[in-house]
Amino acid sequence: MRHTLSVLVENKPGVLARVAGLFSGRGFNITSLTVGETEDPTVSRMTIVVTGDDSILEQVSKQLNKLIDTIKVFDITAEAHVEHELVLIKVQAEAGARAEITQLAEIFRAKIVDVSEKAFILEITGSADKVSAFIDLMRTFGIKELVRTGPVALTREAKRKK
Amino acid sequence: MRHTLSVLVENKPGVLARVAGLFSGRGFNITSLTVGETEDPTVSRMTIVVTGDDSILEQVSKQLNKLIDTIKVFDITAEAHVEHELVLIKVQAEAGARAEITQLAEIFRAKIVDVSEKAFILEITGSADKVSAFIDLMRTFGIKELVRTGPVALTREAKRKK
Repeated sequence: MRHTLSVLVENKPGVLARVAGLFSGRGFNITSLTVGETEDPTVSRMTIVVTGDDSILEQVSKQLNKLIDTIKVFDITAEAHVEHELVLIKVQAEAGARAEITQLAEIFRAKIVDVSEKAFILEITGSADKVSAFIDLMRTFGIKELVRTGPVALTREAKRKK
Repeated sequence: MRHTLSVLVENKPGVLARVAGLFSGRGFNITSLTVGETEDPTVSRMTIVVTGDDSILEQVSKQLNKLIDTIKVFDITAEAHVEHELVLIKVQAEAGARAEITQLAEIFRAKIVDVSEKAFILEITGSADKVSAFIDLMRTFGIKELVRTGPVALTREAKRKK
């Protein structure tokens, strides 16, 4: 099963190396790991997507909690949450293909962030499923380069109106 | 000086640990590191933002190139490139503040991705400067939680029309 962990850690040199080492040393399969600053400059938030059965996940959480730089580990898989990633795609866009690419970008709410004679750079955000569907569509035009951030996640508030 | 490295690596377990260990072992100051899949499932792209003088940067590039899993290191700092990140912000949004937050979101082309009685989750993408400016504005309403992916980057094509 796919789990999403949201981990608050001290923003110090070496923390990423220790966390990454913990996973690789135990042969856990990380699908993605993203680390960035939070509202508190001394604290970073890691979003780790990991695939494995529940007993493995429990081990991972325990090990993470033991690290001195770990403040808190949240397994948000079962909670309502927003989980989005950003992808930049450089796609071949000769004159004949531009209208169609632009139309698909509009449907997916992707942004065209660079235009040259033969290529567009598109930015798309959303769930892994949405982003992957868009990448598949772009493949027919010819993807020159692509980069994904991996997902970041926040839990939704308890009482939602929308 | 702030440098952006775009590094193609083999998509194998342990690569992230080795790269992160290389930086922490030498005391290099990583501002952010993002790793995600590319169009080729056997290859991942890391975007590493690192601050330091040019001689330090040269050392980093050489060390990265020596790693067995490294395919290619590009220092794209001096090239024209698009460098965007994604941020999710949970901001306090009581009835009285909603109109103003919605208006600011429109100006910055941020998306409201979740609405509850007392909070919004907003998604914003763009350069670090733009994103930071928006975070500063949201601070006046009260930020409950925040997560940043760190930037990903692609070089622009040589002949730009826009």
